[in-house]
Amino acid sequence: MLDWTTQFSHRTARMQASEIRELLKLLDDPNVLSFAGGIPDPELFPADAFRRAYREVLSDDGCDQALQYSVSEGFAPLRRWIVGYMATVGIECSLDNIMITSGSQQALDYLGKLFLSPGDTALVGWPTYLGALQAFNAYEPSYDRLEPFGNQSTEALQAQAKAKGGAVKFAYTTPDFANPTGETLSLEARARILDQAEALDCLVIEDAAYQALRFKGKSIDPILKLDIERSGNIDATRTVYCGSFSKTLSPGLRLGWVVAAKPVVQRLVLIKQAADLNTSAINQMVMTKVAEAVFTDQVVRVRASYAHRLSCLLTALEAHMPSGVSWNEPEGGMFVWVRLPESMDAQALLKEAIETIQVAFVPGHAFFADGTGRNYLRLNFSLPKPAQIEEGMKRLGGLIASKL
Amino acid sequence: MLDWTTQFSHRTARMQASEIRELLKLLDDPNVLSFAGGIPDPELFPADAFRRAYREVLSDDGCDQALQYSVSEGFAPLRRWIVGYMATVGIECSLDNIMITSGSQQALDYLGKLFLSPGDTALVGWPTYLGALQAFNAYEPSYDRLEPFGNQSTEALQAQAKAKGGAVKFAYTTPDFANPTGETLSLEARARILDQAEALDCLVIEDAAYQALRFKGKSIDPILKLDIERSGNIDATRTVYCGSFSKTLSPGLRLGWVVAAKPVVQRLVLIKQAADLNTSAINQMVMTKVAEAVFTDQVVRVRASYAHRLSCLLTALEAHMPSGVSWNEPEGGMFVWVRLPESMDAQALLKEAIETIQVAFVPGHAFFADGTGRNYLRLNFSLPKPAQIEEGMKRLGGLIASKL
Repeated sequence: MLDWTTQFSHRTARMQASEIRELLKLLDDPNVLSFAGGIPDPELFPADAFRRAYREVLSDDGCDQALQYSVSEGFAPLRRWIVGYMATVGIECSLDNIMITSGSQQALDYLGKLFLSPGDTALVGWPTYLGALQAFNAYEPSYDRLEPFGNQSTEALQAQAKAKGGAVKFAYTTPDFANPTGETLSLEARARILDQAEALDCLVIEDAAYQALRFKGKSIDPILKLDIERSGNIDATRTVYCGSFSKTLSPGLRLGWVVAAKPVVQRLVLIKQAADLNTSAINQMVMTKVAEAVFTDQVVRVRASYAHRLSCLLTALEAHMPSGVSWNEPEGGMFVWVRLPESMDAQALLKEAIETIQVAFVPGHAFFADGTGRNYLRLNFSLPKPAQIEEGMKRLGGLIASKL
Repeated sequence: MLDWTTQFSHRTARMQASEIRELLKLLDDPNVLSFAGGIPDPELFPADAFRRAYREVLSDDGCDQALQYSVSEGFAPLRRWIVGYMATVGIECSLDNIMITSGSQQALDYLGKLFLSPGDTALVGWPTYLGALQAFNAYEPSYDRLEPFGNQSTEALQAQAKAKGGAVKFAYTTPDFANPTGETLSLEARARILDQAEALDCLVIEDAAYQALRFKGKSIDPILKLDIERSGNIDATRTVYCGSFSKTLSPGLRLGWVVAAKPVVQRLVLIKQAADLNTSAINQMVMTKVAEAVFTDQVVRVRASYAHRLSCLLTALEAHMPSGVSWNEPEGGMFVWVRLPESMDAQALLKEAIETIQVAFVPGHAFFADGTGRNYLRLNFSLPKPAQIEEGMKRLGGLIASKL
């Protein structure tokens, strides 16, 4: 019998079953109040628009195309819609600057594949999106801190990266309503990240997954827009923008996109061709119709619903959390980031919370490349209903208070 | 401005735009008779079954699930259907031995990621499926020849692999109606590949993409079945079986599957979670319904249609090819492999064929890891209609004859 452990490539050595996966399973248990997943409320899905679009795509002349292989760069009318959408966030691009991905998670995997050699360094938030760390880990990078207002010089960052056997290849950031912190980067912070990337001669990966989910305050220019202003045009930029339909229309079709300079998109298309040929043709055709028909209205609807739940969550936290617990107040997105007293361990708390009060969340250390941050936890507010939010925070606040 | 060439990882160095991609574009030109793609005839898609299934999935209680995130291992009822299908080809397995992939191309990418470290060796056919080479190339292997009846000892293969800085990690083969040759491995050849893998202490990747498309003759046991017979049960095997719905029901939903020992499947699930979270939920739910409803009938229908076209192609080759040109007679699949006189270059012929006689095919060298085989070409017969086959071979035979 084969000893599998001797067969696996060293790049998968860091892989292990994540808690997220286990936590997701809890969503099937109706007795658990879950604040764990980064999951949209299915009641908000524009189901009628999807029903209509699948019917139309399969009933007209497009049927053959919908069920057939397709081009690796993605369905042209969907890319055309995205060109229009990008213009609404201030980014001018053409069809050739866009590739469709199977969810924006796939974009992170392909960007890791394209840019990271073993020993290279990725700059990431401390904390950052767990799924980005998972995607990049397969390409064996080191991580260092992305700190727009930090004290570390770019020379020091580059020297450290060199000492680890590579170079700083990119800074990865979610500028709007980040996962897990809910934080939004100021215009100045975005400009500084671009400054740093220029000084390091590296890329910026701008994860815009939550960008459309702003509940209040003024939109801040995407980093790619700032880069275009500096560089003159998109093909001279160093920023790769990753968009997603998962938080607005539906994650079930697995559709995201990348916007970048043509040389990057051309390479990504080759990677995609080798990795899965193309994203589902029928889903791309359907998403084109649904986006054209309902995107604007849908975003208004989702924003209103999630804004209300965030407000319920903030009220419930205020009412039920003991002193010593603090949290931020995001302007959008799906998450609130909670800081427990220094001595508490959110992973241990989770275990107890599931067993004794049937409440779930994600412990904060999962989002730190070095596993620190054990006294933080992430609360999702897009899936639970207002009454569940109130009840969940009452229970969780009580449990935390009992330990102080 | 960033110098992109200094930024790309060395693993993408071998990537370049393939002719296949360019050739696929020709399919849009109604004036070109294309024998290039490995593409099913869309007229055979069970469109009504898909219409019904999308309607049902979106109209009943499954709608929320269809449009939501899903588990990385795949939709359980689809895996259950696959357990039943695998039993029909003699393979006993359980749900935990199966992961759903976004087409079987994705399985090849993930298997490369899981097993190949730079410098490792993959044994492949000479020629072999171009897409497998493209998927594996991203993980920087060397290639050596998989020859069930070859003279090379396993010791010599292992020594060569070691000299290249790694080990032989797997043998990749398409036992039934291989792409590009159309060849089927005898039972003895399959047993020998397993013998070699045992001697090399490596894996076998069994690409079963065309397995269901047998037109005549008796089915031959899959390698995984032989392995289970030797090993006692699937969890003790070294063979990874890759299945696909693309050649039978539709490639447009991007659905394939992997069957393997649990330790392999568990790792692949972690890879998938990090790479794209999950394959489209709605497509998996729909495919379950379509497979349950029409798979058996559909396979009968597709076999009959392609068998007829193969027969037309063989007749046309016989009628129109000058002496000095030879070809095989496959028992199924989608391809006939044509040998031109030694002095001819199929790539040059293709260019001329497109320009002067509006006929396309894939030049054979694309399928050789070392770029040899320049006097071969691959003809697809699943897409062109019988009259187009006759006309195409008449033109191509004339062009070849004019060069002799």
